[in-house]
Amino acid sequence: MESTKIILDENEMPQKWYNILPDLPNPLDPPLNPATNEPIKIEELEPIFAGELIKQELSSDRYISIPEEILDIYRMWRPSPLYRAKKLEDILKTPAKIYYKYEGVSPPGSHKPNTSIAQAYYNMKEGTERLTTETGAGQWGSSLSFACNYFDLECKVYMVRSSFEQKPYRKSLINLWGGSVVPSPSNETNFGRKILKEFPDTTGSLGIAISEAVEDAAINDNTKYTLGSVLNHVMLHQTIIGLEAQKQMEMAEDYPDIIIGCCGGGSNLAGISFPFIKDKLDGKSDVKVVASEPSACPTLTKGQFRYDFGDTAETTPLLKMYTLGHEFIPPAIHAGGLRYHGDSPIVSKLVDEGLIDAISYHQIEIFDAAIMFARTEGIAPAPEASHAIKAAIDEAVRCRKTGEEKTILFNLSGHGHFDMSSYDRYFSKKLSDD
Amino acid sequence: MESTKIILDENEMPQKWYNILPDLPNPLDPPLNPATNEPIKIEELEPIFAGELIKQELSSDRYISIPEEILDIYRMWRPSPLYRAKKLEDILKTPAKIYYKYEGVSPPGSHKPNTSIAQAYYNMKEGTERLTTETGAGQWGSSLSFACNYFDLECKVYMVRSSFEQKPYRKSLINLWGGSVVPSPSNETNFGRKILKEFPDTTGSLGIAISEAVEDAAINDNTKYTLGSVLNHVMLHQTIIGLEAQKQMEMAEDYPDIIIGCCGGGSNLAGISFPFIKDKLDGKSDVKVVASEPSACPTLTKGQFRYDFGDTAETTPLLKMYTLGHEFIPPAIHAGGLRYHGDSPIVSKLVDEGLIDAISYHQIEIFDAAIMFARTEGIAPAPEASHAIKAAIDEAVRCRKTGEEKTILFNLSGHGHFDMSSYDRYFSKKLSDD
Repeated sequence: MESTKIILDENEMPQKWYNILPDLPNPLDPPLNPATNEPIKIEELEPIFAGELIKQELSSDRYISIPEEILDIYRMWRPSPLYRAKKLEDILKTPAKIYYKYEGVSPPGSHKPNTSIAQAYYNMKEGTERLTTETGAGQWGSSLSFACNYFDLECKVYMVRSSFEQKPYRKSLINLWGGSVVPSPSNETNFGRKILKEFPDTTGSLGIAISEAVEDAAINDNTKYTLGSVLNHVMLHQTIIGLEAQKQMEMAEDYPDIIIGCCGGGSNLAGISFPFIKDKLDGKSDVKVVASEPSACPTLTKGQFRYDFGDTAETTPLLKMYTLGHEFIPPAIHAGGLRYHGDSPIVSKLVDEGLIDAISYHQIEIFDAAIMFARTEGIAPAPEASHAIKAAIDEAVRCRKTGEEKTILFNLSGHGHFDMSSYDRYFSKKLSDD
Repeated sequence: MESTKIILDENEMPQKWYNILPDLPNPLDPPLNPATNEPIKIEELEPIFAGELIKQELSSDRYISIPEEILDIYRMWRPSPLYRAKKLEDILKTPAKIYYKYEGVSPPGSHKPNTSIAQAYYNMKEGTERLTTETGAGQWGSSLSFACNYFDLECKVYMVRSSFEQKPYRKSLINLWGGSVVPSPSNETNFGRKILKEFPDTTGSLGIAISEAVEDAAINDNTKYTLGSVLNHVMLHQTIIGLEAQKQMEMAEDYPDIIIGCCGGGSNLAGISFPFIKDKLDGKSDVKVVASEPSACPTLTKGQFRYDFGDTAETTPLLKMYTLGHEFIPPAIHAGGLRYHGDSPIVSKLVDEGLIDAISYHQIEIFDAAIMFARTEGIAPAPEASHAIKAAIDEAVRCRKTGEEKTILFNLSGHGHFDMSSYDRYFSKKLSDD
């Protein structure tokens, strides 16, 4: 029987990230200072972000070298495997070929450490002693704690309350690697106290948690803020996924017709797709890229492409992106990592320009797809990643009907080992179909 | 920086298991029929076990070919990686070299599928339609459910009650792959009802759960029983771990002076060590093998080497093994997979003959070691596997004191993603030091 694993040799691991900014057909609209509506100045970002990350945010270099200290940590689990989903293809009776890149092999269990390691490293280099952040499902928070552990930084995580309650064990992971975590809104910031007073029963949101983490970084010494998605430098760091996948598809002597990622802030989709979108912009491929998002938080499918705040308290710069409005609080679906009102400005721009398609799914069909995947490919997927699975299954079923032998590649961004309570709710028919 | 991962090519994956029986210096004492005290006859085992597994249990063939259908499933995650624990060595300031084989990469997260896949396969071949088993921590139960899913078998798991309550999400995994699970003692068997009546508050034990699963298999049609450890054929299937590790140590141009595994029923220790013990018996090495067990269930360090029942209800054959007595019910420590009164007859024999050493540890020092490991090597280990980590750390510290540059190899038999509640108890200082 043929192999279904495509393993890239460690020596073949990419040494540079790919920056899509200089290749965009039209330049990004700049982030604006909400007080002046003028493009934000670098000095205004410096109290919050490490200098090197701001530089990367605005860089026009197509490739940026990955420092050896970051590669050293990446090598703990990278290159990540690419799988041919033969057993899933068989059960779907599809002529399509389905591949998936599996990012759940990282110790925190998702793609998030690709950027948390980089962000912690650059902050350490610049003398930062403490990092704050928000987290939805906890994948980002645990990944930042994991990264801070390696660079001797304190880590403080504001975790969206609904996830804090649904996913108690991602908190334990944060503690395991030495970080600390509170439910957001919390009593530890002015904004958190304000929200708690007005809406004591709120489930929280990423927008609120971002406001708290930014406030914490702004008022505390030697403290910077980090973001697990949305920003350009986060997309940059995640491109290692797609750069590896390109080499692995080459090993498989294949090339994707369709690339799929789930989409909350956009980073795992960006990671797998941007290197292939470069091929398309270079006229070398005609790949279709699909962002799969929850119907409960339909940023790309129902939102508007306009300037908006990244957070609820209106403390961030204005970003030009697809948004549901920065006061939008989505239902407490189990794909907590996809509950964000906005989206990456780059991903938004590419959607606006027709280079990325978007699709949305309801919660129960997502879990149906997750179960089918677990019973064929073996892996218990995260609810977030299951949005990509569902879209891949739909494409494969379409191929069954049309007879097309398309090559589908999706990003399995993380495992669901800390999401078992949502599976329990699914099996006991207690899951809402948001 | 040098690589710390040693990846074996899929083409190099062993195609045969190693059977230590013909190489034992002295033959095993046979299992006895408790009614007659005579060696058990094959016919007496046939109502409970698949014929091919009984054959393997008694085989004198040194190598047994692994069927292609089993290799096909193994290849989903095998060969498993071998790591050099450089970051752990650094923090310990030891001249020792520490390697670990990581079996947590399997979808159920431990070494257990190495045998569950084989057991399900042979049962399917012989027309079995339903398998029963017991499980402690749930690693075996989830692995059997995973295996039954691939061979279209029903799966019924009796899970030790203390683990059922401590580790709710291993139940969810069992359901994810289509198996069903009840806490043991249960109301579903005569023996379970008897125990519940006498000891309504019992935490359960592996001995009780085995009795229930055997009773279920004996009274239901087309149903066989499977065991996740202890028996010779289970040790056999696990040798793929050590056979891979031998090739990987060769790739690293090294050879272990000390091999360590945690020990409950003995299968992961057997798996990593038996191929190296063969080298020792062949006069090619002087490796020291160490079984690390909990002080709360000190089978090898405090038990007696004698005939005893494998279960509490006295339904199994008598096995010559180290035992604490089949009525022993250990405290509800979090390493639920190591709470067994007996041990593999082969491992017991090797301990008795001085070919394997045994050591025991209390619960809190095990978690101290687990945290040190998570903060250096990144992986959150299972409490069971952390017994091997602790013993490896102790050996490395001894080397620091003596200056010896020993090579230590241990088996990291599983991850702790479903054990986070025990980490929570550790961090909140609620962990007993059993």
